[in-house]
Amino acid sequence: MQDIVEGIARSMGEKLGVKYYVDYGRLLRDSEVDAVIIATPTFLHRDMVIEAAEAGKHVFVEKPLAVRVKESLDILSYVRKRGVKLQVGYMRRFDAAYRRARQVIEEGGIGKPTMFVSIARDPAPPPGWGSDPSKSGGIFLDMLSHDFDLARWLVGSEISEVYVVGGNYIYEELRKTGDLDVVSILFKFMNGAQGFIHGARRCAFGYDLRTEVYGSEGVVYIGSYEDNMFAHGDSRGITKKGVAWFERRFYEAYVEELKSFVKAVLDDKEPEVTVLDGLRAVEIAEACWRSFRERKPVKVEMH
Amino acid sequence: MQDIVEGIARSMGEKLGVKYYVDYGRLLRDSEVDAVIIATPTFLHRDMVIEAAEAGKHVFVEKPLAVRVKESLDILSYVRKRGVKLQVGYMRRFDAAYRRARQVIEEGGIGKPTMFVSIARDPAPPPGWGSDPSKSGGIFLDMLSHDFDLARWLVGSEISEVYVVGGNYIYEELRKTGDLDVVSILFKFMNGAQGFIHGARRCAFGYDLRTEVYGSEGVVYIGSYEDNMFAHGDSRGITKKGVAWFERRFYEAYVEELKSFVKAVLDDKEPEVTVLDGLRAVEIAEACWRSFRERKPVKVEMH
Amino acid sequence: MQDIVEGIARSMGEKLGVKYYVDYGRLLRDSEVDAVIIATPTFLHRDMVIEAAEAGKHVFVEKPLAVRVKESLDILSYVRKRGVKLQVGYMRRFDAAYRRARQVIEEGGIGKPTMFVSIARDPAPPPGWGSDPSKSGGIFLDMLSHDFDLARWLVGSEISEVYVVGGNYIYEELRKTGDLDVVSILFKFMNGAQGFIHGARRCAFGYDLRTEVYGSEGVVYIGSYEDNMFAHGDSRGITKKGVAWFERRFYEAYVEELKSFVKAVLDDKEPEVTVLDGLRAVEIAEACWRSFRERKPVKVEMH
Amino acid sequence: MQDIVEGIARSMGEKLGVKYYVDYGRLLRDSEVDAVIIATPTFLHRDMVIEAAEAGKHVFVEKPLAVRVKESLDILSYVRKRGVKLQVGYMRRFDAAYRRARQVIEEGGIGKPTMFVSIARDPAPPPGWGSDPSKSGGIFLDMLSHDFDLARWLVGSEISEVYVVGGNYIYEELRKTGDLDVVSILFKFMNGAQGFIHGARRCAFGYDLRTEVYGSEGVVYIGSYEDNMFAHGDSRGITKKGVAWFERRFYEAYVEELKSFVKAVLDDKEPEVTVLDGLRAVEIAEACWRSFRERKPVKVEMH
Repeated sequence: MQDIVEGIARSMGEKLGVKYYVDYGRLLRDSEVDAVIIATPTFLHRDMVIEAAEAGKHVFVEKPLAVRVKESLDILSYVRKRGVKLQVGYMRRFDAAYRRARQVIEEGGIGKPTMFVSIARDPAPPPGWGSDPSKSGGIFLDMLSHDFDLARWLVGSEISEVYVVGGNYIYEELRKTGDLDVVSILFKFMNGAQGFIHGARRCAFGYDLRTEVYGSEGVVYIGSYEDNMFAHGDSRGITKKGVAWFERRFYEAYVEELKSFVKAVLDDKEPEVTVLDGLRAVEIAEACWRSFRERKPVKVEMH
Repeated sequence: MQDIVEGIARSMGEKLGVKYYVDYGRLLRDSEVDAVIIATPTFLHRDMVIEAAEAGKHVFVEKPLAVRVKESLDILSYVRKRGVKLQVGYMRRFDAAYRRARQVIEEGGIGKPTMFVSIARDPAPPPGWGSDPSKSGGIFLDMLSHDFDLARWLVGSEISEVYVVGGNYIYEELRKTGDLDVVSILFKFMNGAQGFIHGARRCAFGYDLRTEVYGSEGVVYIGSYEDNMFAHGDSRGITKKGVAWFERRFYEAYVEELKSFVKAVLDDKEPEVTVLDGLRAVEIAEACWRSFRERKPVKVEMH
Repeated sequence: MQDIVEGIARSMGEKLGVKYYVDYGRLLRDSEVDAVIIATPTFLHRDMVIEAAEAGKHVFVEKPLAVRVKESLDILSYVRKRGVKLQVGYMRRFDAAYRRARQVIEEGGIGKPTMFVSIARDPAPPPGWGSDPSKSGGIFLDMLSHDFDLARWLVGSEISEVYVVGGNYIYEELRKTGDLDVVSILFKFMNGAQGFIHGARRCAFGYDLRTEVYGSEGVVYIGSYEDNMFAHGDSRGITKKGVAWFERRFYEAYVEELKSFVKAVLDDKEPEVTVLDGLRAVEIAEACWRSFRERKPVKVEMH
Repeated sequence: MQDIVEGIARSMGEKLGVKYYVDYGRLLRDSEVDAVIIATPTFLHRDMVIEAAEAGKHVFVEKPLAVRVKESLDILSYVRKRGVKLQVGYMRRFDAAYRRARQVIEEGGIGKPTMFVSIARDPAPPPGWGSDPSKSGGIFLDMLSHDFDLARWLVGSEISEVYVVGGNYIYEELRKTGDLDVVSILFKFMNGAQGFIHGARRCAFGYDLRTEVYGSEGVVYIGSYEDNMFAHGDSRGITKKGVAWFERRFYEAYVEELKSFVKAVLDDKEPEVTVLDGLRAVEIAEACWRSFRERKPVKVEMH
């Protein structure tokens, strides 16, 4: 356990019953440490991942991999050079519903995936650095890279071209940092399939996260805008709550992704979400920003 | 078309482009009339059906068949004697969802039907005679005989014993006429299956009508407490409306049941809901009243 | 009642109890006829509407108004010149769920409409002329002009720019006629709002039609991919059917739109869906085809 | 941590990083232990709880409190005599959906609770002692005492009279031990409200657990027969899975109930589910068995 604030490092270390460090370099020099989990702000990922790789530690890094493509390529080269494993925290791949969607698709349950649709609305924008595109990559990377990753994973093809419509509709503070609050992305996959992602940094009733993949023989639907475990009917009609936000909605997925990472390290296997997956998401997000600025469809530059 | 109020008879007759009568007897003497649809208050059914049967007309009579078992037996004997056809207006049997439930059951999709559950909540009690048990048969007959009919039809066995808990919780005016507003019926089928029906004369959000039949290999569910065609999410959560009340909910079923009756007459076949089905519902309702008064399970007396 | 096939004209006329014609011109010369309902293939609309307008008859014309913008402008000028009313058959505006969505939006229930999303998947392509873009306008006009109309009506702003991704994925026969079977449209409204429409000419389980409008204070959702009136649970899980196709899904809306048209004529008021609404849908569809061919966002040319 | 199998005790102790015991008496003599969690088969509860109480330890005991009323009364007297706290593991009270139901009811959101309905279907009967009524209390106690507890808690009144219909429909092995597999209970509350609980030891698609409480001003619905996080539409229709079984469905509730117990001990407060609540559930279950044997409604004997 490491945190630059000693109080946090100590209390968390004690709570978890593990060693703790204030200094990241010292943690990396600890020979008992095989792997690190980096859950710091995005703009710190590049240096911390590279330092860990240099120290020969395997790395689990929170999504996204890095703020820019260039930083991601730096990470890629160090990780490869040192032969350490790296997994990116796209935890939705470990959620039971998304996993089942992929299984149904792989079993031919929708025919050929032809259209990917994802709608993602958060209750509120992230505080602090998360709303500063120079530190977080902005809405396309910080929020919607989950959906880029799902799109590639579920359709089984790379995203080749994106066209963005977006703007500032709700939060004036996002306009100041250069971020957007409501965006839409229409895109093409290399295999000819179509895709659409819509994201908003606000949802009046909580968290609205839905994905569907269409094929000529069927459709898979993931997510719901309502929690169906409770309803209250009265003279106004029937009222439900929205689904719990990500920390509870994906609680099991967070556990599963870490189990998967540990297993990949122990079994010396490729992690389920690779450094290349992480790079792709950053490339697509950069293409989205370019399309937004140039107001036209642009190719995704793949490295 | 006949109505004892001349204005209604005329305007409806003209609207429908058919002959109209104020006098029921004259209508029955019209040799062009093959069959009559009796949609009058329940307490008028006995005499009107018998008069029609005496005149050799086939009869479609709104549910329930009659207020009492004795009256129903009168109807039965006249109808049989004159050889006319009689169909009772249990239209839910003609609704697509209930029909599909029966089809699934018949195809073995739930194994052996073991438990029948029906919940029926109306927005409000019926006005006028409908809330006077001496004229309508009360909540068991006027409202829940639909569910008795469904239970027999879906489970494929007669109801042999009923136990009732019920009372006056909401409408003081129903207490005065001797009717009840919230009731529960636990019952047994002759084949050993179990059944439960709950009815209430009020539902704050409209119309809550659900039925399910359980077997060891599956369950069929009919109905919903919410209309899933529209939802509004805002800071209070997600709000939907209840399902439309019976006239719109069962619009197609009402059309289908009349088509079925006409076809039975033209093809000289047994109607889908027979005079015996009508009698059974009245017998069960009478048993419910008896159980309510005697506060114990009672046998259904079948004739 | 008019049909060029005498047998159809006669049998329908007799069934409905109305006069019938084989010759459209004779029907238009009938002074008892105040208005006509034109439900012919799209490519016949222009001439038939103009002929009716010339004869001074009010016109209800099935959607879309005409195959091309030029034809629509012809209609517009004749209708205006002769002062007859014209309503276009965008019946979804008369469906209870869509109407309620509009009411909630107008009452401020979602804040400012910021994002329109519509997904429309039909069970199968239309037979005959419906799949020939030169006669039907193709998927954008024949199928998705419903959604263009809803977008304008619900968001309350004109569509100014469209970008299309589409192709032939399923039906080879559509490729031959030049039509498409899976398309996506990302668009902008004049007021800055965003919109997305996805259409497919096939849906494995039936009819999947959903629309949502997002604002910072709420979201309205219309439609569902499942009929919630029946479910069957067995060892495979819980299975439901899709929603009934348009003729039954929108049965009441079809009745309401005609009532509305008759009322507009009798009360001498503007119809709820005007000739200009019809023109706009054709303009947007033409822009979609242009965007598809030119592979870039294009402006909608409004007349 | 204590288990009579040394291997289990040791491995669990090590995994959790806590002391472990094979001998229960030794654990109770450990002065560092303030409270015990008893999660053994029901027939062991009486002696283990009493032994713990004698040792002055607070007790969290899995539901139900004990197999028989007599044993429960023994527990009650020892717990009171020694002044230790006891909480019974009716975890559904700590589930977010049930908690919200209670809150809505307390805030008047349904008016006066008038009808309680609960349907509980398990995927399969419990293995081993769980299906032997002499050790588990049978279906009424082992399975449906959850619902008795909810009924009392949500309606806010004691259950005064029960009438049972039940039998052996599916599992011959249950008939041999004297247990039942499908049962229905119609009951009365002391305040005049009605209640119904239906339980089955089999559900073809998994776990079907729903509760609703009706009042004149509204209804609360808890639970669903389907998991709405994933759907697969294909030519057979739309298919979903059932809800995860209790260990995952109530994962958070299990955590919350233990937190609540710890807090009650630390704050020296009455636990949220008391020994009296535990006793009531056993009394009601015994009344159910009596009603089943005597085939008539019976009073619940409260101590």
